[in-house]
Amino acid sequence: MPVGLSAPVELSPVAGIRLGIASAGIKKPGRRDLVVMEIAAGATCVALFTRNAFCAAPVIIAREHLDTDTPCYLLINTGNANAGTGASGLENARRSCASLAQHAGCAAREVLPFSTGVIGEPLPVEKLEAAMPAALSALRADAWIDAAHGIMTTDTLAKGASRQVVIDGVTVTLTGIAKGAGMIRPDMATMLSFIATDAALPQPLLQRALAQAVNASFNRITVDGDTSTNDSCVLVATGAARVSIETVGAEFDIFAAALTGLCIELAQAIVRDGEGATKFITIEVAEGRDAQECLNVAYTIAHSPLVKTALFASDPNWGRILAAVGRAGVQDMVLERIRVQLGDVCIVSEGGRDPAYTEAAGQAVMNRAEILIRVLLGRGDASERIWTTDLSYDYVKINAEYRT
Amino acid sequence: MPVGLSAPVELSPVAGIRLGIASAGIKKPGRRDLVVMEIAAGATCVALFTRNAFCAAPVIIAREHLDTDTPCYLLINTGNANAGTGASGLENARRSCASLAQHAGCAAREVLPFSTGVIGEPLPVEKLEAAMPAALSALRADAWIDAAHGIMTTDTLAKGASRQVVIDGVTVTLTGIAKGAGMIRPDMATMLSFIATDAALPQPLLQRALAQAVNASFNRITVDGDTSTNDSCVLVATGAARVSIETVGAEFDIFAAALTGLCIELAQAIVRDGEGATKFITIEVAEGRDAQECLNVAYTIAHSPLVKTALFASDPNWGRILAAVGRAGVQDMVLERIRVQLGDVCIVSEGGRDPAYTEAAGQAVMNRAEILIRVLLGRGDASERIWTTDLSYDYVKINAEYRT
Repeated sequence: MPVGLSAPVELSPVAGIRLGIASAGIKKPGRRDLVVMEIAAGATCVALFTRNAFCAAPVIIAREHLDTDTPCYLLINTGNANAGTGASGLENARRSCASLAQHAGCAAREVLPFSTGVIGEPLPVEKLEAAMPAALSALRADAWIDAAHGIMTTDTLAKGASRQVVIDGVTVTLTGIAKGAGMIRPDMATMLSFIATDAALPQPLLQRALAQAVNASFNRITVDGDTSTNDSCVLVATGAARVSIETVGAEFDIFAAALTGLCIELAQAIVRDGEGATKFITIEVAEGRDAQECLNVAYTIAHSPLVKTALFASDPNWGRILAAVGRAGVQDMVLERIRVQLGDVCIVSEGGRDPAYTEAAGQAVMNRAEILIRVLLGRGDASERIWTTDLSYDYVKINAEYRT
Repeated sequence: MPVGLSAPVELSPVAGIRLGIASAGIKKPGRRDLVVMEIAAGATCVALFTRNAFCAAPVIIAREHLDTDTPCYLLINTGNANAGTGASGLENARRSCASLAQHAGCAAREVLPFSTGVIGEPLPVEKLEAAMPAALSALRADAWIDAAHGIMTTDTLAKGASRQVVIDGVTVTLTGIAKGAGMIRPDMATMLSFIATDAALPQPLLQRALAQAVNASFNRITVDGDTSTNDSCVLVATGAARVSIETVGAEFDIFAAALTGLCIELAQAIVRDGEGATKFITIEVAEGRDAQECLNVAYTIAHSPLVKTALFASDPNWGRILAAVGRAGVQDMVLERIRVQLGDVCIVSEGGRDPAYTEAAGQAVMNRAEILIRVLLGRGDASERIWTTDLSYDYVKINAEYRT
């Protein structure tokens, strides 16, 4: 039951990109679980990957291929993460690239593999191979919504967004899709996101735009604090719109802002569709000495099972928020300076319950589906904002029954 | 539904200690929620408190009183934590000490207050005051089990343990009680523990023994990662047994080992009775470079909602354990050297599923109520061990409905 989210009804095609979807039957027969993205010659491609030390085989191979070549194809499967699979996992990832390359007529190193699903099971490469011709013959420029469906796992809704901005008098399109609902936390998530634009940017500039956007979006969300083994976010600039952004400047800023907005929309969609989510929570921590301590406080609140269950119950049990702030490891915190707000209601001031606070006012905010928790540390100018969910029976149900 | 735990049927009295229990009706009428512990003159007392920066009013007052005086009484209430209550909370804690002192005929600074329960509500001091005469007139040496019941909150079973050791030809008794089931994580927990011995030890030595014991017990458990605002562990040495331990040496070691064993039993009891627990999980991380990285890996596994829900479902979804190890922040981890064992079954070796592993073998271990997860990092000699629970529907239920 996603919170304030509906599936995208229209996603703008990006000149130079075609997508093909097929059913490989990796985990469930008939499910559309294989997506191929074709990238026209002359594009630039950058990516960010999980920082989990146990990163999956496809992450290792995608990094390796991207280091030396510009991809012609992205090959994405759901139903199996090809993670925790050792040497044979690497071999399977390489083989799937080689097979697609053979079918499509390019080099194996020009294919980037992405997998998501169960960890630790061998990837059934032959099933992927059998479905590749169907995916390739289905390639279409307007298949972004189908592709968004094709990369879903425990997601209940497809996730995608488009932006158009005018740069140098030319309309530039950005379209992206994403998947992810569990094993979600900063430094990426069990999350795949594929974004394309028809602008042209040299690789360093494209990487800069992506890092900036991801830092303000996918790296600011958490569902359960579990950094996944497979997170990947890819940005392709096809250059088909004949707009070239060569340096940092006003044009880059317009592009980067559009990209950041698009990534925030996708990242929020992941949280809104978080496993078992019944609430969409924004946590703002302001007046910190630096960004890191603001993030520490925000994530300590976001990861507290006690705060999350209280949010699920719509219980204004603000003591749990206070306890989380207190254990976030901020040095020399002066309790009397801290204020905690729930939406527009001040609940804590001067180390205790605000004199004007009433349970009814707190309850009114907690009854909402979208809730803002705001902590003012009273010791500096830094501030940060992250997004998370509550912890419900359904979270337990989904994750207890995932493999059955 | 506690895991492998039953309530204590006998706890040895400790000469010099008497306990009185009464019903103050703080949260629910008729519930025994007030405990007074009387300490005979000549005792030594040490304590460890929560490191939560938002520590509760009674923690601040207990620390303050203990700094200058040896307590004659401990005053413990459940139903209200007197935390997040600002200046009036401090006033209420001081007033409750003064009232007990007046009834008992000692100085207010010779009373240490302890509170546990809901955070953020004003402490109803007048209710405590009204029940103090009943608690004082009920003082008995053999009331440890009643006291163990009197300090419970969401605990389903009372927790207590006794040890007897012979030192210098004399039998020394140690008895302790504890409470705690949620908001439990290292660096203490929503946990109160009161331990007494009839040995005599000077304060620095007693503090040393307590720190050592707590570090191996209460600081090695986690239910939900939430460090509470009220954690306190008190150790009283009455000296009534006429055995004096003056220096570190063989006698101190016997005493310290008995104390550590007792604390481990109490700490494990807290985990076994953890909110919604259906499994008792031991996590051992060995072959680390230092203790800290072993603890980081162990707690990352213990706090992963995905690992915890898989344990609840008895699902040998070991990929989630692997993913947790991978995001624990260990520098330069070599995946190929890491082994993961579930009980006596090796599941991961050389970066992937162990060739000899079968789902049936993993399932057999997961079906047990008590499970050992063992991670060998292959890079040093350090090892650490912690205890935790699974994450069940009941955990969500208990914490979503706590205040209703």
